[in-house]
Amino acid sequence: MPRLVDHELRRRQITSAVRRLIVRGGLDAVTFQSVAVEAGFSVSLVQYYCGTKKDLLLATHRSVMENVGTRFAQRWTALGEVMPREAIHAVLTELLPLDEQRREETIVLGAFGTGSVTGQGITPEETLTASNLLVSILADQLRRAPQLEPPVNRIELVAELIAAAIAGIAQGMIQGHGTAELALELVDQQLDLVLGKRN
Amino acid sequence: MPRLVDHELRRRQITSAVRRLIVRGGLDAVTFQSVAVEAGFSVSLVQYYCGTKKDLLLATHRSVMENVGTRFAQRWTALGEVMPREAIHAVLTELLPLDEQRREETIVLGAFGTGSVTGQGITPEETLTASNLLVSILADQLRRAPQLEPPVNRIELVAELIAAAIAGIAQGMIQGHGTAELALELVDQQLDLVLGKRN
Repeated sequence: MPRLVDHELRRRQITSAVRRLIVRGGLDAVTFQSVAVEAGFSVSLVQYYCGTKKDLLLATHRSVMENVGTRFAQRWTALGEVMPREAIHAVLTELLPLDEQRREETIVLGAFGTGSVTGQGITPEETLTASNLLVSILADQLRRAPQLEPPVNRIELVAELIAAAIAGIAQGMIQGHGTAELALELVDQQLDLVLGKRN
Repeated sequence: MPRLVDHELRRRQITSAVRRLIVRGGLDAVTFQSVAVEAGFSVSLVQYYCGTKKDLLLATHRSVMENVGTRFAQRWTALGEVMPREAIHAVLTELLPLDEQRREETIVLGAFGTGSVTGQGITPEETLTASNLLVSILADQLRRAPQLEPPVNRIELVAELIAAAIAGIAQGMIQGHGTAELALELVDQQLDLVLGKRN
């Protein structure tokens, strides 16, 4: 019986190769040739799965989003019933480059964000879903918070602010501005300001 | 009498061309050939002023920093004696892409930040001076604030947080996440959290 090709695995090998190329050389380092070499496939096999460079980038962006989403869901289940502060803290630290995988994700998403402005492959609309989702998760948790400092009608705005801050903290961290320790202190400081000081 | 070449002007024409190229196509769009075409000079003239691609990028990064610095200084002088909140607000809005020039600066600095991680031309150290300077300006103003919410020993941390947030807000804005109006509301919200609600 012929062995079935595992398409999912092949796709993952291709998008993993694209991520590594972006980390080493930015979005412009991604070509069918470089992806084929990095993944150990032929150019035509890569093209079979992703017909255009835009397909390659979109598949890679989607794969990062799926990884983050899966990790979020696992973390969420493991948390169980927790206070809003703890939930928000968990969500935010998942987005900090505190290990190799998250560091790779932060770099790749940063490159996609910058590239969407300078016209390299994918559009701003294609990168926005995740940040809108983050804002709505944060707002849901803020609504549950009893000791909320800002008036309730500012919750969406505060959620937007926390999302912007974590993006700045994560990009600052990979760009060498501050350690993991500082990043975690900044997250706590932001939550102190929003939810009141921890005990 | 032979007309003296205005070296400063030539340099500025070259770095302006580099900025426009980055906005349209990212750091990889910058080559001696493309800069020469964009600036209307010969390749050898561009090379006379900037011998390597790294020189080109460093000169451009420096020119953006000088523009921002000059604008800061002018704004600062025009402000005169103001409350810390107003001073911080002025500093932060200078960093938001609220007009064409600041939009170009935000895109170019974003590309440099991302590129410093993915190895495209300049190193993180070369991009850090500005963000350290910003943190120290913010901390100085926070120390003057009478109604400061966070304890005094957290001033440096709060200054870091405000700097990270404005970076996230500015990059979010150029990446299509939110309008100028939202960005300004986020700045006010962050200042409300740090310095207490406005009257």
